[in-house]
Amino acid sequence: MSLDAVLARIDADLDPALERLKQLLAIPSVSTDPAHAGDCDQAAALLAEDLRAIGFEASVRPTPGRPMVVGHVGSEGPSLLFYGHYDVQPADPLELWHSPPFEPQIEDTPKGKVIRARGAADDKGQLMTFLEACRAWKAVHGSLPGRITIFLEGEEESGSPSLIPFLKENADELRADVALICDTDMFGQTPAIVTQLRGLLGEEIIITGPSRDLHSGLYGGLAMNPARVLTKVLASLHDESGRITVPGFYDGVPPLDPELARQWEGLGFDASGFLGDVGLSAPAGEQGKTPLEMIWSEPTCEINGMITGYTGEGFKTVLPAQASAKLSFRLVGQQDPHKIRDAFRAMVRAQIPEDCEVEFHDHGASPASRMNITAPQFETARQALSREWDCEAAFIGVGGSIPVAGYFQTILGMDSLLIGFGSTDDAIHSPNEKYNVSAFHKGMRSWARILDALAH
Amino acid sequence: MSLDAVLARIDADLDPALERLKQLLAIPSVSTDPAHAGDCDQAAALLAEDLRAIGFEASVRPTPGRPMVVGHVGSEGPSLLFYGHYDVQPADPLELWHSPPFEPQIEDTPKGKVIRARGAADDKGQLMTFLEACRAWKAVHGSLPGRITIFLEGEEESGSPSLIPFLKENADELRADVALICDTDMFGQTPAIVTQLRGLLGEEIIITGPSRDLHSGLYGGLAMNPARVLTKVLASLHDESGRITVPGFYDGVPPLDPELARQWEGLGFDASGFLGDVGLSAPAGEQGKTPLEMIWSEPTCEINGMITGYTGEGFKTVLPAQASAKLSFRLVGQQDPHKIRDAFRAMVRAQIPEDCEVEFHDHGASPASRMNITAPQFETARQALSREWDCEAAFIGVGGSIPVAGYFQTILGMDSLLIGFGSTDDAIHSPNEKYNVSAFHKGMRSWARILDALAH
Repeated sequence: MSLDAVLARIDADLDPALERLKQLLAIPSVSTDPAHAGDCDQAAALLAEDLRAIGFEASVRPTPGRPMVVGHVGSEGPSLLFYGHYDVQPADPLELWHSPPFEPQIEDTPKGKVIRARGAADDKGQLMTFLEACRAWKAVHGSLPGRITIFLEGEEESGSPSLIPFLKENADELRADVALICDTDMFGQTPAIVTQLRGLLGEEIIITGPSRDLHSGLYGGLAMNPARVLTKVLASLHDESGRITVPGFYDGVPPLDPELARQWEGLGFDASGFLGDVGLSAPAGEQGKTPLEMIWSEPTCEINGMITGYTGEGFKTVLPAQASAKLSFRLVGQQDPHKIRDAFRAMVRAQIPEDCEVEFHDHGASPASRMNITAPQFETARQALSREWDCEAAFIGVGGSIPVAGYFQTILGMDSLLIGFGSTDDAIHSPNEKYNVSAFHKGMRSWARILDALAH
Repeated sequence: MSLDAVLARIDADLDPALERLKQLLAIPSVSTDPAHAGDCDQAAALLAEDLRAIGFEASVRPTPGRPMVVGHVGSEGPSLLFYGHYDVQPADPLELWHSPPFEPQIEDTPKGKVIRARGAADDKGQLMTFLEACRAWKAVHGSLPGRITIFLEGEEESGSPSLIPFLKENADELRADVALICDTDMFGQTPAIVTQLRGLLGEEIIITGPSRDLHSGLYGGLAMNPARVLTKVLASLHDESGRITVPGFYDGVPPLDPELARQWEGLGFDASGFLGDVGLSAPAGEQGKTPLEMIWSEPTCEINGMITGYTGEGFKTVLPAQASAKLSFRLVGQQDPHKIRDAFRAMVRAQIPEDCEVEFHDHGASPASRMNITAPQFETARQALSREWDCEAAFIGVGGSIPVAGYFQTILGMDSLLIGFGSTDDAIHSPNEKYNVSAFHKGMRSWARILDALAH
């Protein structure tokens, strides 16, 4: 019955836990802004001190950018690495906040109590669910189960420039049986473990024709128009059925696991509601795929931006010298971003007429991540979550990328249990960010149950 | 031998004629800038006074914008309407001028003497060639041949807002057997009469998909991307051979007149040089057409501008809510801009998927102009020009539009002899505009010969 004692302790300790969270939220640890470097140091120091209070050997570890916080506890038994980040997005535009972003407030809303501040959900509230679970466990048991490392980053919102070198230099110290990452959402009301994330390939194409903008009366019809070339190239990237035409693009795209297909089916995803919220009605992906497959397990090719010629008010009969586009490919399974980049560039080059030149800019390439969900921790954690939330927890995908999960696989050789308690309406990266107090509370209880289940 | 006397008078009077041109060039009659309204009035008054000195009954005629200048002389015989414009482009950027734009200078250059000032070529120097020819004629003969009306506009560089109403209200006063327009270039060293001008249809397409920009990880693959729709639409406008695919687009495109084809062939147009100057090498128009046909007698469809999504530095994985493009069609022969607009819009609408909307903005529609070159004045003027320049003058086309020539056809029912002495290196609309003194001199002589030939 010791788990019950930990859960009771968490329940009794909710108000002080919220006060501790408020203390952390009051620090404007914005990592993209050098003016807030001292605030990041302060947040790191506060967290290291708090970890020591829970029994961790904790230290603030310098990097060329914002510091990392690392804490260890325990010397035997199964090992876990918990990851979260203490840095936050900038709060701009400030005028859209109803209360100051770094003066956290508990508010009653029609959907229940929330704590409102920049970072409430992303990621200070989420990372504190784990620390508070550890605190309650320690209070009840006098020690923590197995070997736990807590690893908190301070540059997640600014592209994690120090993360890869830090992981490589400290691989032996950080490696564990499995990682826990608390930086994701639930699936509506359903607790969820993210088991696959799409990769990302970013490309920019710049097509140049004449040496300067030309008058379309004087040259139109005779001179090559690079804007026309660009539209031909971009229009060639999908066929009529919506399939992407880059040669070899689908190499390494796995069929959907039937068990996952069953679970996803069971989620009852409301595609019309999801699309309806943004003014759309019809799934636009490849024919024959379900909406969840389109965003979780199918690759994409999207135009993210495009510019050429005159785009101001009114009209100018210019024949542009240059036309450019930014594109991204979301990748799944074993798709190789580097091979796809090469195939894409070759396909574009083959369509460039003799009077145009094309230049490519590389905007990153990361492969997809898929966790090995047959590893026992996945089912164990899923059952623990299901017990806390009193409904079947799901293995889900996400359409975006969480790079740290990929680095843990490639650098530390371990899978991650991506478990978070965020809601799509938390307004992360936007004004008036909040975290549901119920998510905070049941999040702490969830981690206590997961720690208990993984320890046994 | 009276023509010889007029030509001799022109030769003897060159320096005073340049002084008179300088006086006109010193007035900054910029029509787009209301601050220069008084300067436009002053230029109009100076010209009216000068016309009176040559024997015209001249008046400055108010409009809602800048005034027109109209002068009449003669009461019997064949009638001519001469058109020019006394307003000029703004002189910005001032810092790129080597001498002040409204302090005209005569300069020696490796290619000969030039007069440098804003408006030197466009159009004050050109319009003065005709006035000076009249002045010399009057001095020698005591009167001018036939009936001549001189009509000078002050809003050509700001879209001619008063021109159509003025032509309609004064149609009987202005109508003549033929118009003379001096606002075009020679064809290299060859004197030329422009006998066809392309029309222009301007369109803007705005395609809207989701109600806001979306995250391409969260929505990519499921949500319709309007940028993708736009590229499909634009790429569909030309077929593989470069032909425009808008249904009915080629209705009214006439075959090239064999006599014109022969003359154009004889011009020895250096397409590689023309394209080479702007960094290109290959004619990009429809297969099977000559380079001059591509810019003078073939219609076009060009993308003038396009914008969607994120176009700043770096990368943003946004799925844009909107994508837009500006396009122009250059029209020839009897192509009907309104029918083409309708067909274009219907073709675009048919390609818009259910989750997108399209909006069109109208940026003008004017048909092409073609002069009836079998009218006797055309061959008469061509022979007169050939005699002055001692080489066969040519009937040529221009790829752009000179709207006044179209209005003279549709409102006054008369064709125009578009004869000008500009060079492509005159830098009209640019800093350091100039007019060749030889063009000014031989321009005056050309008009004397044309007046003589048309009078007989």
